[in-house]
Amino acid sequence: MKKEKKAASSVKIMPLGGLEQIGMNITAIQYEDSIFVIDCGLAFPEEEMLGIDLVIPDVTYLKENLDKVKGFVITHGHEDHIGSIPYVLKDVNVPIYATKLTMGLIESKLKEHSMLKTVKRKVVKYGQSINLGDFRVEFIRTNHSIADAAALAIFSPAGVIIHTGDFKVDYTPVWGDPIDLQRLGELGKKGVLALMCDSTNALRPGFTMSESTVGNTFDKIFLDNKDSRLIIATFASNVDRVQQIVNMAVKYGRKVAVEGRSMVNIMDVAADLGYLKVPDGIVIETEEMKNYTPDQIVLITTGSQGESMAALSRMAANLHRKVSIQPGDCVVFSSTPIPGNEKSVAKVINELGMKGAKVIFQDTHVSGHACQEEIKLIYSLVKPKYSIPVHGEYRHLCAQADIARSLGYDNDHIVIAKTGDVIELNDEEAKISGKIPTGAILVDGLGVGDVGNIVLRDRQNLAENGIIIVVLTLEKYSGNLIAGPDIVTRGFVYVREAEELLDEARVVVTDSVMNCMDKNITDWSKIKNTIKDDLSDYLWKKMKRNPVILPIIMEANV
Amino acid sequence: MKKEKKAASSVKIMPLGGLEQIGMNITAIQYEDSIFVIDCGLAFPEEEMLGIDLVIPDVTYLKENLDKVKGFVITHGHEDHIGSIPYVLKDVNVPIYATKLTMGLIESKLKEHSMLKTVKRKVVKYGQSINLGDFRVEFIRTNHSIADAAALAIFSPAGVIIHTGDFKVDYTPVWGDPIDLQRLGELGKKGVLALMCDSTNALRPGFTMSESTVGNTFDKIFLDNKDSRLIIATFASNVDRVQQIVNMAVKYGRKVAVEGRSMVNIMDVAADLGYLKVPDGIVIETEEMKNYTPDQIVLITTGSQGESMAALSRMAANLHRKVSIQPGDCVVFSSTPIPGNEKSVAKVINELGMKGAKVIFQDTHVSGHACQEEIKLIYSLVKPKYSIPVHGEYRHLCAQADIARSLGYDNDHIVIAKTGDVIELNDEEAKISGKIPTGAILVDGLGVGDVGNIVLRDRQNLAENGIIIVVLTLEKYSGNLIAGPDIVTRGFVYVREAEELLDEARVVVTDSVMNCMDKNITDWSKIKNTIKDDLSDYLWKKMKRNPVILPIIMEANV
Repeated sequence: MKKEKKAASSVKIMPLGGLEQIGMNITAIQYEDSIFVIDCGLAFPEEEMLGIDLVIPDVTYLKENLDKVKGFVITHGHEDHIGSIPYVLKDVNVPIYATKLTMGLIESKLKEHSMLKTVKRKVVKYGQSINLGDFRVEFIRTNHSIADAAALAIFSPAGVIIHTGDFKVDYTPVWGDPIDLQRLGELGKKGVLALMCDSTNALRPGFTMSESTVGNTFDKIFLDNKDSRLIIATFASNVDRVQQIVNMAVKYGRKVAVEGRSMVNIMDVAADLGYLKVPDGIVIETEEMKNYTPDQIVLITTGSQGESMAALSRMAANLHRKVSIQPGDCVVFSSTPIPGNEKSVAKVINELGMKGAKVIFQDTHVSGHACQEEIKLIYSLVKPKYSIPVHGEYRHLCAQADIARSLGYDNDHIVIAKTGDVIELNDEEAKISGKIPTGAILVDGLGVGDVGNIVLRDRQNLAENGIIIVVLTLEKYSGNLIAGPDIVTRGFVYVREAEELLDEARVVVTDSVMNCMDKNITDWSKIKNTIKDDLSDYLWKKMKRNPVILPIIMEANV
Repeated sequence: MKKEKKAASSVKIMPLGGLEQIGMNITAIQYEDSIFVIDCGLAFPEEEMLGIDLVIPDVTYLKENLDKVKGFVITHGHEDHIGSIPYVLKDVNVPIYATKLTMGLIESKLKEHSMLKTVKRKVVKYGQSINLGDFRVEFIRTNHSIADAAALAIFSPAGVIIHTGDFKVDYTPVWGDPIDLQRLGELGKKGVLALMCDSTNALRPGFTMSESTVGNTFDKIFLDNKDSRLIIATFASNVDRVQQIVNMAVKYGRKVAVEGRSMVNIMDVAADLGYLKVPDGIVIETEEMKNYTPDQIVLITTGSQGESMAALSRMAANLHRKVSIQPGDCVVFSSTPIPGNEKSVAKVINELGMKGAKVIFQDTHVSGHACQEEIKLIYSLVKPKYSIPVHGEYRHLCAQADIARSLGYDNDHIVIAKTGDVIELNDEEAKISGKIPTGAILVDGLGVGDVGNIVLRDRQNLAENGIIIVVLTLEKYSGNLIAGPDIVTRGFVYVREAEELLDEARVVVTDSVMNCMDKNITDWSKIKNTIKDDLSDYLWKKMKRNPVILPIIMEANV
């Protein structure tokens, strides 16, 4: 009986994505027959995921427990927290709970997928609670690089869990109020079972600076570059950043043009909902820029990460339809490169420099995530029994565990989980008690999940070495060779430069086929393998290359 | 007459690589009929150069002026300064001049290409000069992340040019003496026409720390992790770094094992030439590690940049034949990620963490390049008439130009060149006076230059979307369809998941072919285009994808 009681009093935390693999945050929380899900993000493809557009989580566990799932609670409106909603809610259609701006961004996504009418939604205010089966979830005000971010206080029969979402501590935010440290302290005083805290910046010492400090830098940039056209690239979702640029434009009498689809979209949503205040007459169409002198314009654009298709990158490469970089332009990167984007950003900076633009990227950005001292602050307010680092790569989770240890937590009170782990916790212990199926589902065009590892491996091979196709036609019944073998290549060598080589390859292949004929080999797979082996040997010896070799045999019905 | 005189008194500087495109440093210097070349490096492929192993410079200009080329002067032994020697010297076989360690590394390259007997070489000491036609070139001692680095004082009838090579100012180097600041001052006092100074760190304020400071960090790491096996990854070419690890191993009574082909190779060359001192009995074979306890071992390895095929990455991914990571191992990254490698390094760190290893990467590396204050120091000693920033991306060259301006240089006395520019300078002016042919030649396996833009574009398309091959056989004379159309795909979709789609595609293609037959279209290229258009329309509508479509028509001689 004791055992049963204990099992019944545990709460389960199941990360379905987002731990080793950054992005794609989605975590199921379960107590007996009640499940709710925190966030529903997507990930952008890793370098080796050739041709993939998006990565979404495998939610088999939710589908198998559909009757228990009470809803999705979303902490904020970034893609890695809301991006999979249209995909996942096709199978798991339960209500969504989020703050106003977050919901606005979710709705613009649902609209694109024509799902606005089918998905139930409820806007929640800070301080408000919602009931989800055995759970009560309270939204707590935090700060982040997007407005309306929330931490969650999760009240369960097994105890209170605090989930910070992505957050920082900003005492002087541009929009709204500072993070509700009092409420966190109050909850901590009453007793918190576990803290699930953002680890993204856990490797960085100190404090993250306030968003408003960027405004001071902008002020200096506008002042120092009075005569230049200003082009400022930043994250589309950083509405407060955009607000500060707009404020400076007003102060210095410049008009604002906007480029980049996501920038236009998010600015529209934010302005509609009152999160962005743009005085009338400030915004002009990009086409109207020609009616103004450079010193009268600031252009806000996407592309701060050097993304090859984004507006700024196209401007730098002379590929933008409406804007061309001019000598004397001053381009500001209001961002730091996300790991993996450093080289693309450098490329864009070099291209801008070669076109005579001045490029500024110092003190023009602050992070949206808490550094070490802020993480310690939250631990000191919440004083949880258990530490469960979340949000970040494995090395970041380990770094937060180090912080927890420095605050006196021992290893029995720290749980570092991987995606798919089931963390079970109650007042007596916290442990990883099992595994549930999880994984990454690849989205390529309209296809969801039809590109897997085999296809990716093929793409990798094709990418590195190209393909050689060997075709031949055999006569039905007789098996006589009546056409070919012909050789066609793509991505292998520049054919005009390698005619001799390809002629020799044709001889090799013809010999292979003739050998098979002579030996009366009629099994097609054997013929194909002989062709493959012979040609592959020849090419490796001749040029140390390993292209994909694809023999195709056709049968003619003459 | 005046014009002619002026032309005769100019020296030309022609970067053949290495300015916008980092790596691949090679610069021709010409005075009338004398040409010599500084460095002969290679570049590693950019991300979009799929399947390419190396990039080497186009030296058409040197080939066309072969009778004038007197020699190659090499500043130091890094790949981006020596890597193209075996390729370029096949066409431009002139003597090579370099310091001892640099020459040792060049010789190990020439040996691999069986060119040791055909290439003339001369080892030069610091302070020594060589005559190259109208030029005299003096080697001046500098510091860098590899020993035996040299700056060059180039004496020409048009004046003296100082080229720093890659350098830093290290007052307490691990091997040898500090940079010869006195000689630079002496030359400066006598009058220097131009300074070609390393720009790599021109964006970084302050001074680069001495290599020996890393030794102090190692000391602390060895002390703090007494019971752990130590695995230290660093650049193979950083012999001083390796020396410091060996010193600590001796101090703390550990044996040294070495993994990674380039690490073993460079350590051999450096030890042979006296640049690395390893006491007898310290080095063990990796296989012997099992005879020692973890606290008795330090393993030096390649892979500090997360390169997927390097030893450390293979250990982290459980793919290394001899070494597997154990809980409790302490792995030190004695490096910082080169831009573009951040994500791979993070991946390796995450994998190591998941295997229970502790990972250290703070204060374990110093740069080999001069920061802003060091660059100012060199300018203040040399006091050149003209500033010609070299080594670095375009943004770094611009940053050095900013430094020069802060020292009082005006734009007429600063030349920022691009690869292929001809910089012409004399006592009266410095200007870009023309262009010579340059470019990047791609090496894939044994093929040099047979992969160009068309092949790369094909590889990119194949990589992103895969390929669909449509084959059919027509009877000669009659033109009747006697086999196919068959469809084969690679890298497109996982076939078992998409049988229905492929069946439909086959119907589309059959319809296309039948239509052509009905209309008596016999032109193969028209048939192929019809197939391509119809299938491509179908696939875009059905799944928003754009695979490479390759129709192949065969003719059967029945």
